Amino acid sequence: MMQTPLLLSSFVKRAEQFFPDKLIISRTSDDHIHHITYREFAKRTRKLADALTKLGMKHGTKVGSFAWNHHRHLEAYFGVPSTGAVLHMINIRLSPEHIAYVINHAEDEILLVDEDLFPHLENLAPHLKTVKHYVIMGDNKELPETSLENVHLYEDLLEKASDTFEFPEDLDENTAAGMCYTSATTGNPKGVVYSHRGIVLHSFALGLADSMGIKERDTVLPIVPMFHANAWGMPFAAVFFGATQVYPGPGFDPALILDLIEKEKVTLTAGVPTIWLAVLKELEANPRDISSLRSIVCGGSAAPKGLIRAFQEKYKVPFYVGYGLTETSPLVSLSVFTSKMDQLSVEEQIDIRAMQGLTVPGLEVKLINEDGEVPWDGKTMGELLIRGPWIADEYYKDERTAKAFKDGWFYTGDIAVMTEDGYLKLTDRTADLIKSGGEWISSVDLENAFMTHDAVFEAAVIAVPHEKWLERPLACVVLHGGQTADDNMKKELLTYIEGQFAKWWVPDDIVFLDEIPKTSVGKFLKRALREQLATSVEGV
Amino acid sequence: MMQTPLLLSSFVKRAEQFFPDKLIISRTSDDHIHHITYREFAKRTRKLADALTKLGMKHGTKVGSFAWNHHRHLEAYFGVPSTGAVLHMINIRLSPEHIAYVINHAEDEILLVDEDLFPHLENLAPHLKTVKHYVIMGDNKELPETSLENVHLYEDLLEKASDTFEFPEDLDENTAAGMCYTSATTGNPKGVVYSHRGIVLHSFALGLADSMGIKERDTVLPIVPMFHANAWGMPFAAVFFGATQVYPGPGFDPALILDLIEKEKVTLTAGVPTIWLAVLKELEANPRDISSLRSIVCGGSAAPKGLIRAFQEKYKVPFYVGYGLTETSPLVSLSVFTSKMDQLSVEEQIDIRAMQGLTVPGLEVKLINEDGEVPWDGKTMGELLIRGPWIADEYYKDERTAKAFKDGWFYTGDIAVMTEDGYLKLTDRTADLIKSGGEWISSVDLENAFMTHDAVFEAAVIAVPHEKWLERPLACVVLHGGQTADDNMKKELLTYIEGQFAKWWVPDDIVFLDEIPKTSVGKFLKRALREQLATSVEGV
Repeated sequence: MMQTPLLLSSFVKRAEQFFPDKLIISRTSDDHIHHITYREFAKRTRKLADALTKLGMKHGTKVGSFAWNHHRHLEAYFGVPSTGAVLHMINIRLSPEHIAYVINHAEDEILLVDEDLFPHLENLAPHLKTVKHYVIMGDNKELPETSLENVHLYEDLLEKASDTFEFPEDLDENTAAGMCYTSATTGNPKGVVYSHRGIVLHSFALGLADSMGIKERDTVLPIVPMFHANAWGMPFAAVFFGATQVYPGPGFDPALILDLIEKEKVTLTAGVPTIWLAVLKELEANPRDISSLRSIVCGGSAAPKGLIRAFQEKYKVPFYVGYGLTETSPLVSLSVFTSKMDQLSVEEQIDIRAMQGLTVPGLEVKLINEDGEVPWDGKTMGELLIRGPWIADEYYKDERTAKAFKDGWFYTGDIAVMTEDGYLKLTDRTADLIKSGGEWISSVDLENAFMTHDAVFEAAVIAVPHEKWLERPLACVVLHGGQTADDNMKKELLTYIEGQFAKWWVPDDIVFLDEIPKTSVGKFLKRALREQLATSVEGV
Repeated sequence: MMQTPLLLSSFVKRAEQFFPDKLIISRTSDDHIHHITYREFAKRTRKLADALTKLGMKHGTKVGSFAWNHHRHLEAYFGVPSTGAVLHMINIRLSPEHIAYVINHAEDEILLVDEDLFPHLENLAPHLKTVKHYVIMGDNKELPETSLENVHLYEDLLEKASDTFEFPEDLDENTAAGMCYTSATTGNPKGVVYSHRGIVLHSFALGLADSMGIKERDTVLPIVPMFHANAWGMPFAAVFFGATQVYPGPGFDPALILDLIEKEKVTLTAGVPTIWLAVLKELEANPRDISSLRSIVCGGSAAPKGLIRAFQEKYKVPFYVGYGLTETSPLVSLSVFTSKMDQLSVEEQIDIRAMQGLTVPGLEVKLINEDGEVPWDGKTMGELLIRGPWIADEYYKDERTAKAFKDGWFYTGDIAVMTEDGYLKLTDRTADLIKSGGEWISSVDLENAFMTHDAVFEAAVIAVPHEKWLERPLACVVLHGGQTADDNMKKELLTYIEGQFAKWWVPDDIVFLDEIPKTSVGKFLKRALREQLATSVEGV
């Protein structure tokens, strides 16, 4: 067989050859919605490659992007790696210290920055050791006032660049194409490097009928940020298959999302549960026609069943939970129905949709505990291990590699069970797991149960030290407005939980809080909770 | 990213882990229909690997299969290559001389042979230089009477073998996995070697929503023989995605095909036009319920529009034409509709379905003539060149490699046009193209036009030498029974054609024949026609 390398440039070429008139619809501000054809996209992508090459970008050069979801960011997704350079997608929500850390650690030489985000980086500039050029992505035709040198306008550079720039066809498919950093529980973010091969194979996986099934007929709206695990790979796959794409740009809100879905007849969209909860609320208040949607994909953290039920039952939109991590490109599994699930009741089907689902073709998974591999019985918990061609094998120049990548497997730090049907269900993080009297208790299962109670807005369950059992669960609950945090409520909630779990799973106490501390990506920061509460409830 | 190799053994593991109870339904004779679960399939596949290893199969050993479509052949599809050995799928319809040639050329050491086909090979045995073992695949528990030594029963071997045989996980993904020989216009068949990487990527392509979309919910019936270009890759993809599979076994006929479709609720099936014409005839005579079918895929040669229309209009089954060759694994393109084709009329859509369609993601194509690359304008003909990771880069130990594989491209020898939408339409073979007065005339277009006439059963158009124009087209026509082959008919047909083409395309004459000579795979043998008719019509 031919040794044709799997390269991202082939996606650009395909879109241009077969779907030149299909559109990328890109909102860059309230005043600007761009309609770019794939013909134009391909030209602009080659121009970007030419322009950045003229600025000094070479094979292996790291180019950072600090940007929302829009067409220019998409051009960078292809224009940078297709030359052999590496696009480092910087999470704009990191703390300034961590932003400086990741730019310095990746050794970014050029930064592509949205005009509204530029002030953040300008302030950090004195700390950025390797950056030689700032390129402002925006619609303004004037450079912002700045004391920095080497600041360019993206559109100016493109204007002077050649649209016949040729991407090398002989790149090794294992060449680095992209980088994302993932937040760590403690310490600096950890870098993950994506290869052309990994992204191409991941894109094939996203196009499978049994997975997200991204196809030419789709109109895809990636809400998940392009600086989060490649926007779950959707921008790559959408170009590959020639789908219409819609990008929401900066400062979007639920109303804007719904307007875009209605106006552009979006068929497929993806984001975190927080977004879908907000979108649902807006939809109930101000109805829109969302009948064009064939799927909503939800990931990043567990989706409440009420949310799934609302979209599936009331709005007739299949709502899929996906699972993945920055280290996994990210798609690992998706809650698609296999044929044997057809005969389940509606309620059972919603239970299934709420799980992390079926491993996508191309990856292998297993669960292990202290005794080795655990059975797929829907009960036995184990740490999830993953292997496959779009799974990272290291953290970039980081000694934390040794802990997570062992024997050819990625140790996710997630605790899960597998049903007999090979359906993945996350139950915890290794760090958050509660080990009571030698048995494992899933904090996530308890949290989900609390959150089905009408009075509860959100709930986190953490381990607190215990003399006899070593650890016991403690529930931290935020009530809805208007509810009273008193002993009656405590009793009601504990009784509510008792009926659903083994006796020893039921938390010994509940602490009512105003808010649960969260990470920059909206996940519960249980470490902070543990630190905050460990002393106050010691000896419970 | 992890350097996880793309290996066929991962398909077996996936089917076993995620879809253990899904079925492979396999007819091996009128008396035997087997129902094998993927759990059993995986065990039997490992047993086969163990059994053949005990017979001496090593990394790189060629194992020939001489068999119909059934579960044992499927076990060989995985059990042989997953060990690092190579399955050579022998075309049972080759001449005895060519069968001996391909077995000797591939250096097959073990032959897996259907019991009803064994006599063919037994007769050839004295000429087979490298074969050490014959393994009879069948349901009989007794060895056939034979003078040959080293003849084994497949089921006996499996009974003695271990179902915990472990496939190596560290095979290089470029290891040879399979071989098919393709008939040549002259000379011996040419060998094509498939790698694990090529087959895995091809399987991903078959699962894409924009391609065949093979998925877990499908019930797949591969009618195209497993000795023809991997049965178009369907057995591999079906195991990968956990689809139910139905195999028709030996001596199947249209009635059996329809019975299987109806009984097993087949959703996807594939075969050559000849099969579908026969199936349609049977269906009209003896109606069956074929409403379970979501797609029929047709390839191998051009499909008459009447056939497409009948399935699409009367039976509401989307009928796709695919294009591929032994050298291309084989899927290159498929006549899927892109979104812009929705607004076409029914008749225009049938025209589109009859084309070879859209190049599948992962491959590149171009058309060239003497002056270089030709435009995609729906008119300009050129030879089709293909490049990609499941395209062969040589003929196995064959000097004809030099002519077909050049500059990193495979020269198909097929003449085609591309529409502006990137839709492929074959117009001829390079060898069959008619070059009249410096212009190219498509014999296939003319043949298709003749065959839409009610009186015509089949038609071949060939080039005959001409003093002034160098070549001119001559039509060779077989009429339906009851039609009269006289000058009136000749005149009627030529008039019929005149309305549809430029004047200089219209054949100068028609020769009526009883039959058009065909290759072993049912394609017109125009070389024979040219030889037969060149003298008789010289000087026309």
